[in-house]
Amino acid sequence: MGKKIVFTDRVRIYDTDAQGIVHYAGYYRFFTDAAEGFMRDTLGLSYPLLDERTWFVVVESEAKYFKSAKLGEELSVLLEPKLVSDKALRFDFEILVNGSKSCVGHITQVSIDKELWHAVPMPPSVLEKIRNSTGASLSSSKRNKRNDADNA
Amino acid sequence: MGKKIVFTDRVRIYDTDAQGIVHYAGYYRFFTDAAEGFMRDTLGLSYPLLDERTWFVVVESEAKYFKSAKLGEELSVLLEPKLVSDKALRFDFEILVNGSKSCVGHITQVSIDKELWHAVPMPPSVLEKIRNSTGASLSSSKRNKRNDADNA
Amino acid sequence: MGKKIVFTDRVRIYDTDAQGIVHYAGYYRFFTDAAEGFMRDTLGLSYPLLDERTWFVVVESEAKYFKSAKLGEELSVLLEPKLVSDKALRFDFEILVNGSKSCVGHITQVSIDKELWHAVPMPPSVLEKIRNSTGASLSSSKRNKRNDADNA
Amino acid sequence: MGKKIVFTDRVRIYDTDAQGIVHYAGYYRFFTDAAEGFMRDTLGLSYPLLDERTWFVVVESEAKYFKSAKLGEELSVLLEPKLVSDKALRFDFEILVNGSKSCVGHITQVSIDKELWHAVPMPPSVLEKIRNSTGASLSSSKRNKRNDADNA
Repeated sequence: MGKKIVFTDRVRIYDTDAQGIVHYAGYYRFFTDAAEGFMRDTLGLSYPLLDERTWFVVVESEAKYFKSAKLGEELSVLLEPKLVSDKALRFDFEILVNGSKSCVGHITQVSIDKELWHAVPMPPSVLEKIRNSTGASLSSSKRNKRNDADNA
Repeated sequence: MGKKIVFTDRVRIYDTDAQGIVHYAGYYRFFTDAAEGFMRDTLGLSYPLLDERTWFVVVESEAKYFKSAKLGEELSVLLEPKLVSDKALRFDFEILVNGSKSCVGHITQVSIDKELWHAVPMPPSVLEKIRNSTGASLSSSKRNKRNDADNA
Repeated sequence: MGKKIVFTDRVRIYDTDAQGIVHYAGYYRFFTDAAEGFMRDTLGLSYPLLDERTWFVVVESEAKYFKSAKLGEELSVLLEPKLVSDKALRFDFEILVNGSKSCVGHITQVSIDKELWHAVPMPPSVLEKIRNSTGASLSSSKRNKRNDADNA
Repeated sequence: MGKKIVFTDRVRIYDTDAQGIVHYAGYYRFFTDAAEGFMRDTLGLSYPLLDERTWFVVVESEAKYFKSAKLGEELSVLLEPKLVSDKALRFDFEILVNGSKSCVGHITQVSIDKELWHAVPMPPSVLEKIRNSTGASLSSSKRNKRNDADNA
């Protein structure tokens, strides 16, 4: 339902392991790059340190691997933000290599007060930007799908 | 039900990030260390390259984070092997810091022929060792659960 | 003397450690990204696997750290290629943060036959591209140094 | 001249890359593990955060690679501490695989006040422990060099 935002990344030599493919934990680098890209480029926010006092900490991560990505391959990383609550934000990811599904997964992060180290609502300005972003995505169904995410 | 085998690891400076805690993807290093430790020390097998022709490739990884682990802390990493089929092996993990649950998760790996790059049954000798290991765990239900973990 | 080619990179959360700055070994990721960028974008070559048979393996790496780079900062990574012999290529790096020198270092790589695993001359087409690139850089000494970097 | 202290480590799947060997920057993990091991096990100190106020930050790193280490190989990491000044400590490393030299290098770290972020002398108690450690090494020249390493 939500809008998928597309980032590109590339498999680097340090992402691979002796099996000649991306190490399973290496896909989380692509997830993190897309998460940072979404927060910074799409919303104009820093990540994962939201402001002086509020941080995002990851509470869940998960990936399923389909087709192994190899050295030098260019990746399309599709990100779909989902507001779980005013304290929790989930990003769903899909990684494509040459149009084929390579990896699907998600990370969920919770907003915390870094001094108290417990969950707090995201700052209102952050919350609004994320809401607009996912809200925009609801109305985006009217728009051309190809524009949304290059066919994603 | 299965037997939990305990490994110890330690949070190193390179596991942490600017939030002062272990980076979320860093916990997969602890999972991998325990997986290698189980295969090598408990079963006498190499990992993830089982033999000349057969490799384990990870098809699923997942972690839930409870209490952040910090620099220098010693970790107890509990591993429980689960044979999914003659081609697939799942490891469930629980990471404790000072007796408190820090992280829970799993990885699932599939046995492949590295030349053909498709799933094949694990070599019989490997399968037998894993079966004995998890079979041993079935009979271990008679023993005290706490001891299982502590003595493993 | 040689031409400095400029790449941009960014400090990601996974580059940092509990000191709030880029982990010392993390700067080698920026070196590697620039090396790959130079080989791919400037020369049209894959890296570090030159062709089916010939690989670059790193034989030396070194970095001196001046001003710590922090989360989210944008980096200018200057790369200067130096042909040591027909078998060895050195890249000198300088990383700037907001115009200030953050890190200076180099990596040296040797061309090997991946089957025999010993040093061999780089393939002629590769050697020629690298020579042209550094040859171009010799004549570039006439140009303004600052422009070389900025316009690269 | 100084005493070499020996640590063991192992090449893990995440240390390797698509060349089937340890990624060049991966050797710094072995350096860091030995540095932490020396500080913690030999001197009883935390590393790289010396105390509430004083941190070690790395100002130099360097490695020369001889024989590539491969997946699963056990490493002997020899560490020799050298007090450069009351503010700077250098560790020289040599990594052996099956008795053959695989990698030689060093890191140099400077003691800083983490609030002011400038160099300060190490805390007296830390300095004394390091001096004793390297002082012990001076008198160790009477002993057989090979034993120094083996017995350390």
